[in-house]
Amino acid sequence: MRKEYLITPGPTPVPPEVLLAQAKPIIHHRTAEYTKIFVEVLEGLKYIFETKNDVILFSSSGTGAMESAVANLFSAGDKVIVTANGKFGDRFIQICEAYGLDLIKLEYPWDQVVSPADIEKNLNDNEDVKGVFVTQSETSTGVLNDVKTIGEIVKDTDAVLVVDSITGIGAVETKTDEWHLDVVMTGSQKGLMLPPGLAAVSVSEKAWKMSKSSNLPKFYFSWDKAKAALDKKEPQNAFTPAVSLIVGLRESLKMMKEEGLENVIKRHAALAKAVREGVEAIGLELFAPPEGRGSAVTPVKVPEGVDGKAIPKTMSTKYGVTIAGGQDHLVGKIFRLGHLGYYDRFDITTSLSALEMTLKELGYDFEMGASLKAAQDVLMKELG
Amino acid sequence: MRKEYLITPGPTPVPPEVLLAQAKPIIHHRTAEYTKIFVEVLEGLKYIFETKNDVILFSSSGTGAMESAVANLFSAGDKVIVTANGKFGDRFIQICEAYGLDLIKLEYPWDQVVSPADIEKNLNDNEDVKGVFVTQSETSTGVLNDVKTIGEIVKDTDAVLVVDSITGIGAVETKTDEWHLDVVMTGSQKGLMLPPGLAAVSVSEKAWKMSKSSNLPKFYFSWDKAKAALDKKEPQNAFTPAVSLIVGLRESLKMMKEEGLENVIKRHAALAKAVREGVEAIGLELFAPPEGRGSAVTPVKVPEGVDGKAIPKTMSTKYGVTIAGGQDHLVGKIFRLGHLGYYDRFDITTSLSALEMTLKELGYDFEMGASLKAAQDVLMKELG
Repeated sequence: MRKEYLITPGPTPVPPEVLLAQAKPIIHHRTAEYTKIFVEVLEGLKYIFETKNDVILFSSSGTGAMESAVANLFSAGDKVIVTANGKFGDRFIQICEAYGLDLIKLEYPWDQVVSPADIEKNLNDNEDVKGVFVTQSETSTGVLNDVKTIGEIVKDTDAVLVVDSITGIGAVETKTDEWHLDVVMTGSQKGLMLPPGLAAVSVSEKAWKMSKSSNLPKFYFSWDKAKAALDKKEPQNAFTPAVSLIVGLRESLKMMKEEGLENVIKRHAALAKAVREGVEAIGLELFAPPEGRGSAVTPVKVPEGVDGKAIPKTMSTKYGVTIAGGQDHLVGKIFRLGHLGYYDRFDITTSLSALEMTLKELGYDFEMGASLKAAQDVLMKELG
Repeated sequence: MRKEYLITPGPTPVPPEVLLAQAKPIIHHRTAEYTKIFVEVLEGLKYIFETKNDVILFSSSGTGAMESAVANLFSAGDKVIVTANGKFGDRFIQICEAYGLDLIKLEYPWDQVVSPADIEKNLNDNEDVKGVFVTQSETSTGVLNDVKTIGEIVKDTDAVLVVDSITGIGAVETKTDEWHLDVVMTGSQKGLMLPPGLAAVSVSEKAWKMSKSSNLPKFYFSWDKAKAALDKKEPQNAFTPAVSLIVGLRESLKMMKEEGLENVIKRHAALAKAVREGVEAIGLELFAPPEGRGSAVTPVKVPEGVDGKAIPKTMSTKYGVTIAGGQDHLVGKIFRLGHLGYYDRFDITTSLSALEMTLKELGYDFEMGASLKAAQDVLMKELG
């Protein structure tokens, strides 16, 4: 017997209640029974997004929701500012390029935050900018970008602010309305504690207005089609939705509401802090800069002399603990410990314990148990 | 207590084995464990599609796979023939129009089949046609179009043949390779006996070649991105897949393989015949013409003097049997009994029994039990 642990920033573990809800016999999506669930899910998403805006659900990964923002808001040749300090910022660049937009790219080293001042300057210099793209929580690096400040900058311009909050929502504060975030998206397999397969995107009035003049082709990801279905007397999906996931989503949103969004975010902050202090206590270095550390995932630099690829491999094959390695040019240089969604204190001690055993085996020199002790101190202090 | 029965052409009932497989703890999609499942699923899909072509999986509804064919094969202004004799043929028209193609529309009344001769004539008259779109099994009407004959016509032209087999695959013969069907798609909540949320599309060499010159924007539904991920040493998905559904799909494909594709199709043919003879035995009329009746769903004309909308409503609210009504201009004029996927003999007697009770209640005059007797005769004869 060996127990398996999923310590990645998505897919994240799914609570048993949610898994079992999905195992119920399938219901039809054009019935009163489904509508009741769907309406509850929409309300729950608005609560989590902290918004009164429409929230649209797509049966797709988060990338589909990202693409929907590009295809629905803009026309070929439109000028947009796209910021990137990681793999998912790069993805926005790729999508905007695929749709023929005119990009002002603001690219940063992956261990730095996006500069709000750079955005402000470029907005001032280019009055025809129609959109600004920011990744709130960069899953590839754990870096948190300051979308609150960016929202303040963009709100008085003609541009809409598009925020990839795929590993932000449900982990860190994301005050969609208060912060003037026009378009915000997340994926189901993240803070929402669901299997992958659903993506949600909120759309502000300003964004709806801009979408009216978009001439890019779209169909499955059409916001207008989604909105027409939402606005029916009995709200529906434009196309057959992933019913079992939506049934599961009702359960996970219920759990989040019971815990309270503030507590959910506080829990994530405490778990993230525990991991950070834990790894630092055994002499490891954090990858993300102090001014921009999210609560979804903690990337850690591989210590000198240790085979970087061997860390996730040993943790998984020997200990059954699946963590994430680095992506793109960071392969073998960092590893990433997830703590997004259905995690509590002892998932953190599990992660750190498996990490310590692995590092010992790989010849790294440190005091066994030190990361666990440091993490416990944080957890007891922060979570009581 | 009341038992619920889903007698619709999608979502269709999901076998308990599949529901439970989906309730297993989620696994990460970049692991050897997932790859093993994914490879098994790809092999299973090729078996069901009767093809050696690549099969691409999208986390989306079937509409996403339809859109992928348009966006990946063509360029704006390309001339295509789009046939339509129902709601889903109309959908191909809408998608092609959304992408700015130049359409030759071959539209037929919804109770008639698409004419292969019309396609041939239009291909002869227009040498620059790059694609032909056909709905094999029209879910809205139960009409089966003869894609085998159409395949023979299109194969020697420069055009690719795109076949919506969303309610065809796993219900009726769909010999992708033998019939020269270049692009074939299905959805998970149909013959594959899964919840909605996955779509599969097979792509022939001829279609791959044509896709190389396509300049339409795409990202999430990009075949090239999917292919690059498929062709890795350890095949992957381009974007985070709906893992729980793919785990379920392995189970349902295993069940189909155990039954044998030929038997699966024979079972569907027998169930469809039983329903047809059953409803005719109580004086009802079939909507689809004799030369084009599929095995996924049986649409039946509402008899004169009976409130058409009351039939599905009574069946559902009083008897717990969810069937489908008519769509678009057929609302209230037909009702549709599904028998696609996880159905056996007694789902048919259940459907017909609930239908008889409902019709009696609504004042239709017929001999109670006659449809059941007729269906039983067929079932015993055809299935032994």
